[in-house]
Amino acid sequence: MSRVDIAIIGSGPAGISAAITATIRKKNIILYGEKTISDKVNKAHQILNYPGLPEVSGEEFAQNLRDHLDRMGIEITEKKVTMVYAMGDYYMLQLSDGQMQEATTVILSSGMIQEKPLPGEDDFLGRGVSYCVTCDAMFYREKTAAVIGYNKEAEEEADFLADVADKVYYIPMYKDEPDVKKSITVIHEKPVEMFGDMQIKGLRTEDRDISLDGVFLIRDAIAPAKLVPGLEMDGNHVKVNLKMETNLPGFYACGDIAGTPYQYVKAAGQGNVAALSAVNYLDAKKKMNS
Amino acid sequence: MSRVDIAIIGSGPAGISAAITATIRKKNIILYGEKTISDKVNKAHQILNYPGLPEVSGEEFAQNLRDHLDRMGIEITEKKVTMVYAMGDYYMLQLSDGQMQEATTVILSSGMIQEKPLPGEDDFLGRGVSYCVTCDAMFYREKTAAVIGYNKEAEEEADFLADVADKVYYIPMYKDEPDVKKSITVIHEKPVEMFGDMQIKGLRTEDRDISLDGVFLIRDAIAPAKLVPGLEMDGNHVKVNLKMETNLPGFYACGDIAGTPYQYVKAAGQGNVAALSAVNYLDAKKKMNS
Repeated sequence: MSRVDIAIIGSGPAGISAAITATIRKKNIILYGEKTISDKVNKAHQILNYPGLPEVSGEEFAQNLRDHLDRMGIEITEKKVTMVYAMGDYYMLQLSDGQMQEATTVILSSGMIQEKPLPGEDDFLGRGVSYCVTCDAMFYREKTAAVIGYNKEAEEEADFLADVADKVYYIPMYKDEPDVKKSITVIHEKPVEMFGDMQIKGLRTEDRDISLDGVFLIRDAIAPAKLVPGLEMDGNHVKVNLKMETNLPGFYACGDIAGTPYQYVKAAGQGNVAALSAVNYLDAKKKMNS
Repeated sequence: MSRVDIAIIGSGPAGISAAITATIRKKNIILYGEKTISDKVNKAHQILNYPGLPEVSGEEFAQNLRDHLDRMGIEITEKKVTMVYAMGDYYMLQLSDGQMQEATTVILSSGMIQEKPLPGEDDFLGRGVSYCVTCDAMFYREKTAAVIGYNKEAEEEADFLADVADKVYYIPMYKDEPDVKKSITVIHEKPVEMFGDMQIKGLRTEDRDISLDGVFLIRDAIAPAKLVPGLEMDGNHVKVNLKMETNLPGFYACGDIAGTPYQYVKAAGQGNVAALSAVNYLDAKKKMNS
């Protein structure tokens, strides 16, 4: 694994803008996201206020962004980042496939999570609650665990967990009927809270209490404070300044996650600023070390 | 003169973005600038990092912005704003044609001025130094004054001054030979400083001292601290927060004037944010008064 200059988490307008500017500035980057760009963009009916692209549909805008990336030879890596550790001189990213990636700087542009945390989720994080099956499945050998899936991709994670754990519950938070291994018990009950004492002991649904040893929550994005230990927040948003700097040196945030308004051109503008701040940081670091 | 909701000063990407978003939000705006958009944009060779418009030339980008304005029925008013006064509940804009315009809120997006102030300029402002011939010519009846012109448009101002003042010097800061009235003395000498005591008494050039009663400096833009008395600066830039708010309520700044990096998409993003902040301010004001 070679260390990249900049790891960009999220492929909406903020992350793409950051990737474009960082690439022009000849930095070695990795851009995590979805090749389709972002669901939010694709589903936008019409965007009227992105200057220079009047009356563009969400789909057209996403296509424009993809074309821009293609022309510059920028690829999107379709992996989820499940944890970011500040290592002092660099950052270590834990990925959903169990791999790690080192980066000197990080730009977080993963958008806003609509879902509120489940009661107990924050209390039991690391004590039975996890966001990455690949990373933590081994702790559930001969144990019982549930996967709460907010998207279809969570089904694969449940399948993987079923190979390791003794018993797996799968709770889909979407409408489609899940297609998971037969050994998995699919539950169509709304989760209400997690309970336990030091460790999690169970999950309460609207209908009953289920005893278990662990709960995996597989969302489109992980709340930044959980993704990056030590990252300072301002309410639901990452606290940034006008340079898109956070409280962690070499760590930047931009787009919806960095605050309102939730607007495409604001996100793109902030992505540009975050990239240039990262470039300045990298260049200063290089000078210091030379 | 009817009061507008938002006066936008400057027609670069920041001002245009603000105008587009404010219009979508059904606010009554006036956009001051040049119909050609901005010299800086037009002269850009190629813009590579405006997401969604890969490898666009400055001219094409300017055309795209003009098209966007046209489609929304937004006009650019080709007048210069020479002073902005905070009136408590609204702002009063003094224009280069001597007219006034009231606005409940103001968005300043006039870009960065490259020229440094001339020594003495700040000291004698309002005491012999002025930025608007139309506004202040009457003070120079039977007196001597100089116009330092940073662009061809300044020649008209000198011509107007010559109708009123006793003697007018014209000092072009550009290469073309100026085409001004015969009664005007054109000087090709670099101005060095202004001198006097309470009032200005003369202008020192590289070659000599010229006695006079007033100096008009006609630049592409006026330094914000002079344009808007009381506006808080951060070095050369207007001090803003993430909402593009300044220290004056209802007064916003965005784009280059609000800080580095000087980038088109950053400017467009900030223009969008400034407009939405102004919209929120206007809506809150309306609620309070109803």
